Amino acid sequence: MKVDTSRYKNLIRENLQQGKKSKVFSKAHPGDSISESSLLKASPQKLTLSDQILDREFFDSLHALTGITGKAPQYHQPPGLHPDFAVIKSSGQPEFHYIVSMFIDIRRSTRLFARYDPFVVANITTAIQRLAIHLAWYFDGYVQRYHGDGLLVYFGGKNMSTLQATQNAILTASFFSRFVKEELPDLFLEQGIEDIYTRIGIDVGEDDETLWYLAGMGLCSEVTTCSLHTSLAAHMQGCAKPNGIVVGDNVKTLSTLKTELFSILKDKDGKENRYIFSDPEDKFYYTQWAFDWAQHLKNVEESATSQDQPLSRTVVAGASAIHPSRPVSIPPNTDYLRQQAGTIRPYSE
Amino acid sequence: MKVDTSRYKNLIRENLQQGKKSKVFSKAHPGDSISESSLLKASPQKLTLSDQILDREFFDSLHALTGITGKAPQYHQPPGLHPDFAVIKSSGQPEFHYIVSMFIDIRRSTRLFARYDPFVVANITTAIQRLAIHLAWYFDGYVQRYHGDGLLVYFGGKNMSTLQATQNAILTASFFSRFVKEELPDLFLEQGIEDIYTRIGIDVGEDDETLWYLAGMGLCSEVTTCSLHTSLAAHMQGCAKPNGIVVGDNVKTLSTLKTELFSILKDKDGKENRYIFSDPEDKFYYTQWAFDWAQHLKNVEESATSQDQPLSRTVVAGASAIHPSRPVSIPPNTDYLRQQAGTIRPYSE
Repeated sequence: MKVDTSRYKNLIRENLQQGKKSKVFSKAHPGDSISESSLLKASPQKLTLSDQILDREFFDSLHALTGITGKAPQYHQPPGLHPDFAVIKSSGQPEFHYIVSMFIDIRRSTRLFARYDPFVVANITTAIQRLAIHLAWYFDGYVQRYHGDGLLVYFGGKNMSTLQATQNAILTASFFSRFVKEELPDLFLEQGIEDIYTRIGIDVGEDDETLWYLAGMGLCSEVTTCSLHTSLAAHMQGCAKPNGIVVGDNVKTLSTLKTELFSILKDKDGKENRYIFSDPEDKFYYTQWAFDWAQHLKNVEESATSQDQPLSRTVVAGASAIHPSRPVSIPPNTDYLRQQAGTIRPYSE
Repeated sequence: MKVDTSRYKNLIRENLQQGKKSKVFSKAHPGDSISESSLLKASPQKLTLSDQILDREFFDSLHALTGITGKAPQYHQPPGLHPDFAVIKSSGQPEFHYIVSMFIDIRRSTRLFARYDPFVVANITTAIQRLAIHLAWYFDGYVQRYHGDGLLVYFGGKNMSTLQATQNAILTASFFSRFVKEELPDLFLEQGIEDIYTRIGIDVGEDDETLWYLAGMGLCSEVTTCSLHTSLAAHMQGCAKPNGIVVGDNVKTLSTLKTELFSILKDKDGKENRYIFSDPEDKFYYTQWAFDWAQHLKNVEESATSQDQPLSRTVVAGASAIHPSRPVSIPPNTDYLRQQAGTIRPYSE
């Protein structure tokens, strides 16, 4: 199974081929009105992916991914307002419910400002970030928050098992890491630009340890989670090697993936960096794992391409906000589906 | 001038005095409906600052700060939708305009999960974060984004000088750093909890280098900036020492504050860490500075308390979204105002 990322790459290449930055922009002055001065007068470039039709075309170009989950993708939710917990925005009433948190970061993108106008930088970083979002949508991920050119994506919700949510997060992270590691460097090296790479951290907070609540006040707020494991996912991202995925022990346990995909994280000097969190008083030591996304994708894709019967829809119900308008022709992945169907269970047994 | 932070401290102390965590929360199960199972049934604590009236009382308890800017504070804007640039959300039309970016981070808060329920952790971290937001509001700051218990706050906008916006960011950061360094540790040590500290990065991107645009698509979007200096502010936060503020050279230049408040940043081993960004090809080397917030506050407060004539309003117009409903009795700070009035100038000369 080949996921075609050529549209994203072409857009990135076109922008990388822009020349050195210019200084032709209009400036705003305090005495002027907004309409006269502050809006951009001379725009040497445009923001390509702000075109919604084009954005949809990019999204659709990844359709081969439906071969894995067979899901009609989720689409366009406001950040900080997960559809399954949006009621908290008005009620203010917190609740406990599991979530899978994935932090994605793009490193060294700041270097681009040395060479390119902000317009060009925005086009390049947006194309990379948009691929991450589109991948997440194919796997029912929900964009909780933009972090510059990074993201916090949640997986899971009401009526979805932690198993499926965890596997979906792992797949999103794996496809994105492969793109950044294997498909981006050539584009950047053509322009003599050093490596840009990603780091990803994923963890699962179970029902009894993940509080959904309204952070902030009134309009100045977001519906978000307070959980050790959301916090640890951010820390694990910081521990990941270039183009590495680091996951919490809950991910290893709950994903039911083969244990050989998980290995002890090591520092640059080869020293083990096993525990991302320890509480000696309670004898609680929480392990982080380096995840072998290359092998995982190999396993998944071998499985996906070996199928031959089409299926109209995955047997596992997805998130509540699936966008229903788009007819999806779904290549099959009965192995994935069988695995899902055979292991459904109440949350956090 | 004494800023009374006792309400925040009392709330933090009350929560720190909660006992070890319990496991009495209800769990959600996939087969149950939301109303029956997933909403929290047994809530041993509540989220104190989700009470809007209480939140307002906390905010008002900082009223001594009006002695510095004499400003009626800004209040309750949605994140990712700066009032001066909100039009971009619907128009999609990017524009160039300066902004001051301030990243605030709270470090070691994850440790709290070892001892406390998520409810208690949320109360403690929210109280700390809320003080940062309230301080920022007193200085016309705009909460762009929640980062867990950290924040990205913008200062400035249409009809505000970069000078005032920069000084406001500096003051917000200074008051917050003092609170975390001088007033928090005793509360935590009472419970035998290690230091919690803050790190802050601030930089100014001028008009010709700061692009406001819509990140993301449709509802899944935020109005944000693409600028070297927003990115560098995040990196500078990462370079700051515990309870340190690191600022870009633009801050040093544009704030017009005394040069002795700025010193070269040094690593743990005493080695100079001068340039946060360098582009040898263009001979562009951008310096970051450690900012002496303790001395700055001393200077400001000595100035504020030496005044004796009330003033009804600062002579420098504030942001466009000042909340007008609250009558403010404003102690004077003619020195600050004189400085402002004497140095107004077009943006980014």
